[in-house]
Amino acid sequence: MEYKFSNRALSAKPSRIREISARGAIDPEFISFAIGNPAYETFPVEEIRRCNDLIYERCPKYALQYGPTIGDDGFRELMKERLQKIKGINPEGNDILVTSGSQQGLTLMPMTVTNEGDVVLVEQYTYMGALSCMRGMCAVPVGVKVDDDGINLEALEEACKTIKNVRYLYLIPNFQNPMGVTIPFEKRKKIYELACKYDFLIYEDDPYGELRYTGEPVPSFKSIDTEGRVVYAGSFSKILCSGIRLGFICASNEMIAKMTALKGNLDSGSPVSSSLIARYFMEEGKLDPHIEEVRALYAKKREAMLSGLDKYMSSKCTRTNPEGGMFLWVTLPEDADADAVFDACLENHIGVIPSVCFAPDESKPGKSFRLCFATPTLEEIEIGCKRFGDVTKKFFGE
Amino acid sequence: MEYKFSNRALSAKPSRIREISARGAIDPEFISFAIGNPAYETFPVEEIRRCNDLIYERCPKYALQYGPTIGDDGFRELMKERLQKIKGINPEGNDILVTSGSQQGLTLMPMTVTNEGDVVLVEQYTYMGALSCMRGMCAVPVGVKVDDDGINLEALEEACKTIKNVRYLYLIPNFQNPMGVTIPFEKRKKIYELACKYDFLIYEDDPYGELRYTGEPVPSFKSIDTEGRVVYAGSFSKILCSGIRLGFICASNEMIAKMTALKGNLDSGSPVSSSLIARYFMEEGKLDPHIEEVRALYAKKREAMLSGLDKYMSSKCTRTNPEGGMFLWVTLPEDADADAVFDACLENHIGVIPSVCFAPDESKPGKSFRLCFATPTLEEIEIGCKRFGDVTKKFFGE
Repeated sequence: MEYKFSNRALSAKPSRIREISARGAIDPEFISFAIGNPAYETFPVEEIRRCNDLIYERCPKYALQYGPTIGDDGFRELMKERLQKIKGINPEGNDILVTSGSQQGLTLMPMTVTNEGDVVLVEQYTYMGALSCMRGMCAVPVGVKVDDDGINLEALEEACKTIKNVRYLYLIPNFQNPMGVTIPFEKRKKIYELACKYDFLIYEDDPYGELRYTGEPVPSFKSIDTEGRVVYAGSFSKILCSGIRLGFICASNEMIAKMTALKGNLDSGSPVSSSLIARYFMEEGKLDPHIEEVRALYAKKREAMLSGLDKYMSSKCTRTNPEGGMFLWVTLPEDADADAVFDACLENHIGVIPSVCFAPDESKPGKSFRLCFATPTLEEIEIGCKRFGDVTKKFFGE
Repeated sequence: MEYKFSNRALSAKPSRIREISARGAIDPEFISFAIGNPAYETFPVEEIRRCNDLIYERCPKYALQYGPTIGDDGFRELMKERLQKIKGINPEGNDILVTSGSQQGLTLMPMTVTNEGDVVLVEQYTYMGALSCMRGMCAVPVGVKVDDDGINLEALEEACKTIKNVRYLYLIPNFQNPMGVTIPFEKRKKIYELACKYDFLIYEDDPYGELRYTGEPVPSFKSIDTEGRVVYAGSFSKILCSGIRLGFICASNEMIAKMTALKGNLDSGSPVSSSLIARYFMEEGKLDPHIEEVRALYAKKREAMLSGLDKYMSSKCTRTNPEGGMFLWVTLPEDADADAVFDACLENHIGVIPSVCFAPDESKPGKSFRLCFATPTLEEIEIGCKRFGDVTKKFFGE
């Protein structure tokens, strides 16, 4: 039979990143700066195993039964304390919802606050998984220009003035995916003022927030949120492991109640075991020392990629200077043929992601690439930077 | 601030079942026939723990990393074999998508095939979690009369003739929740013919299918599906444990590809560890003997509830005779005040779920109750039937 798929389904496309990454399977020489997975070597496997064992010693029947849709109470209380300590978020009036990875929050937000055709403002290039969730809920992402210090304020205000039905602004304020930029505190305050003035919400997506390798932490949007406008989302994927699919949302009690009711539709609640693993790990005081180790490793990888690009890349190309996270952003000269450069990269056995994959408007594909430094080894970073640099020099000279 | 929630969010209501069940926490004498959880004592805790250990021995880094959105290949292959064996489903042309509990499938189906206002035909009373998923995707569930052998064929055809935009028929063909009825094979064939004639899909929700205690298994809709019209959904919640949140969908390759793309939005893939636990359990040949044990336990509980009701309940009330599953359905006399009976049950420390909770049209609340025999102990079933029976006799005489 011929299926009549929904508009949502027709908007869903296979992930280009996965396609590019799949090349690794057929090209033995391939080095990938493409996929943005956390590095295997950051997973504290034995510790996770031990925390898993504790579940079977302490509360197997709780963990193996349906749990509360909102998540394990003990984990949620710990997260409130932790968010107060590291993000300055007041637990009063706010609540925590456990999500199945931070991906689930990216669906819950448009599901909760947008109707068909409502607009979500996003950074000029942004996480494609967030874009597909907005489209999957029939909302319309609209890109706003981004500078080296994040979203451009004038462009943002102009968008607020001219576009109707803006329901929220989606931001990755720390070490943005894909560009690697961070929004300074003064700018965050001005963005929040615009949210109040033009009555929209802010979705503060912060999966990389704890992965800072240089510079000073910037207070979160949620820490200055006096009106309940900010929905803060975090994840354990990059600081513990991604396989337990553990994320969380911190927002006003009213917002969390609605999101919890809708999460019930999505999976009736995430596996309690994932929350318990993270909870036991935190209760034993192991999370912060572990994050220090992850930071130390990624800091070396970041340094290797920055110096590799500075050594090998054509001087006609520019790069961002991420203070943390997993990604940086290389921009080609204005007259470059980005498709040809991308093809040459693949021929040269190096995988990067073209900016079109992150563009809310595919008619503005851009001439940039995202490079991930977290997943490859130090050796792969050195070789990969040489290959990528050679391609840029071939096109644009020294 | 005052939030503007989406229509989806405004349609989401807190679960009435959870409210009723919460009473158990404040009423020490409370016995619940309300909630439909699998019985704790059916969880093979030590075996699950051992399978969990195997993950850490065999492939911890695979299990702790992002997995494929469609799910673990080994698990999916085993499920294809198993579904061929126990459900007669041809693996050719069909594929398996791992879901986060069968709940996720209930969202994926309307997400994939309905646009706003499209209609889903459902049984007159049906699983409320499915109804809220349809509403959460802005589809409109419409109830069709149910007889003792399942959905009424004439009423179904009448609905097909008169209602536009029917996209699919949602059925729980085995031991239906809440009514406990099973659709015989001849009727299944006629329903499938109607699906072909009126061009709609069938969502065959079968979480209880393996829990048959008496009578002969009935071939699945999917086993007679020559056109790719049937989406079959199963779950490990009732045959292994619910906490691992493991369900699956079996449908045509084309349908699974679309659903997989949309599942990416929901959680980027379920935890691989859940699939691996079930896979190792199956690979060791332990699932079928375990299901035998679960069946033996629930068969006793079913028998206890049937005989308890027959002993204590007013002869003016009727009950269904489920051949499996977890539920039966008690219907009061036509002139009964169902609300008053429900309140009297709570006063008498016995929890049941009123039919209004399962009604797609709340203006037709009905005068029935769902009673779950799987969760309470045999002793609780005896005492609870006495309490429930006493209430019915108080209202309707012997």
